[in-house]
Amino acid sequence: MSSSPLLEQLIEALRCLPGVGAKTAQRMAFHLLERDRAGARRLAEKLVAASEHIGNCTRCRTFSETPVCAVCSNVSRDAQTLCIVETPADQIAIEQATGYRGRYFVLLGRLSPMDGLGPQQLGLDLLASRLAEGEVRELVIATNATVEGEATAHLLAQIARQAGVRATRLAHGVPLGGELEYVDRGTLAHAFGSRQTLNDQEIP
Amino acid sequence: MSSSPLLEQLIEALRCLPGVGAKTAQRMAFHLLERDRAGARRLAEKLVAASEHIGNCTRCRTFSETPVCAVCSNVSRDAQTLCIVETPADQIAIEQATGYRGRYFVLLGRLSPMDGLGPQQLGLDLLASRLAEGEVRELVIATNATVEGEATAHLLAQIARQAGVRATRLAHGVPLGGELEYVDRGTLAHAFGSRQTLNDQEIP
Repeated sequence: MSSSPLLEQLIEALRCLPGVGAKTAQRMAFHLLERDRAGARRLAEKLVAASEHIGNCTRCRTFSETPVCAVCSNVSRDAQTLCIVETPADQIAIEQATGYRGRYFVLLGRLSPMDGLGPQQLGLDLLASRLAEGEVRELVIATNATVEGEATAHLLAQIARQAGVRATRLAHGVPLGGELEYVDRGTLAHAFGSRQTLNDQEIP
Repeated sequence: MSSSPLLEQLIEALRCLPGVGAKTAQRMAFHLLERDRAGARRLAEKLVAASEHIGNCTRCRTFSETPVCAVCSNVSRDAQTLCIVETPADQIAIEQATGYRGRYFVLLGRLSPMDGLGPQQLGLDLLASRLAEGEVRELVIATNATVEGEATAHLLAQIARQAGVRATRLAHGVPLGGELEYVDRGTLAHAFGSRQTLNDQEIP
């Protein structure tokens, strides 16, 4: 393709990024070489530092440079509420969108026997021993609303029941700003079935 | 945002890639950390190698690890035809799409006084001395069909005239497979004005 082996190798290496195909990788490589070699060197440095020094928190399994992450070691956060998410990205989404002040537990995946992801890979033994400590009162199950996420939520609810901990699940329904006409059937049926009373007063 | 400074720095560094915003950079960082740390390290290595060892060919200015690139040093390529392109990516596009066997000259830009790109930055003195060598017979001007590309083509045609070299320009017109209804007005007007005779015989 190109006459420079190093350029070809760079283009090939860029394809390890998600959503980057041959054409995009080529555009990225040319951009870096033409206009941002300093950025390329900085990126290289950060890639090495991150892949060498970022591990997982021993308490909640999220990405962390220290054995215990900042959230787990923050004593001002409520230790009685534990929110279970599939990925660190989900954790960040909840941190940014809500005022949640409890702790997290990150599964780093979802139940998916086809991909070799069972209870052990999701750290559910770690979770069970965490619940056995007796501090947690509520388990907020925030796995995705997918088939695998629901199966995971089901198992998590069982674990909570065994530990005598209250389990809650994020509400499903019509997204804010969503037009009924364009909401998928499954969501609409669920939202209809779970309709909420607006007027608590008894109507005579 | 995240509790790990190294992770935040990686996300920030990934944004030097074209078309990568905050959300995509985060997705890329998580993907690399969760699933492809080896890929991240390989990418880092290639970024450093490419930005340190890839320079420009002293003959044609394209990216090259050696003082003279593979195309310029290939004696089997026709030295009488010189194709002028704006970028190495354009050169690759022509190599892949056409059977062109001549040489190239890469401007590494286009005339754009606003961006500080004048004849000197485009290496036009190097081009003039190349033409003065007397070997080149045809200058194929393959700058982009944009306002700046056309202005550059105009200047290149002048240089060719001064050197007594024939200048040609890629044909403009309706793209193959293009439907007239959806072709932009400028292209359609140009294609109409430059219509070609299909039947060379004289019609009595």
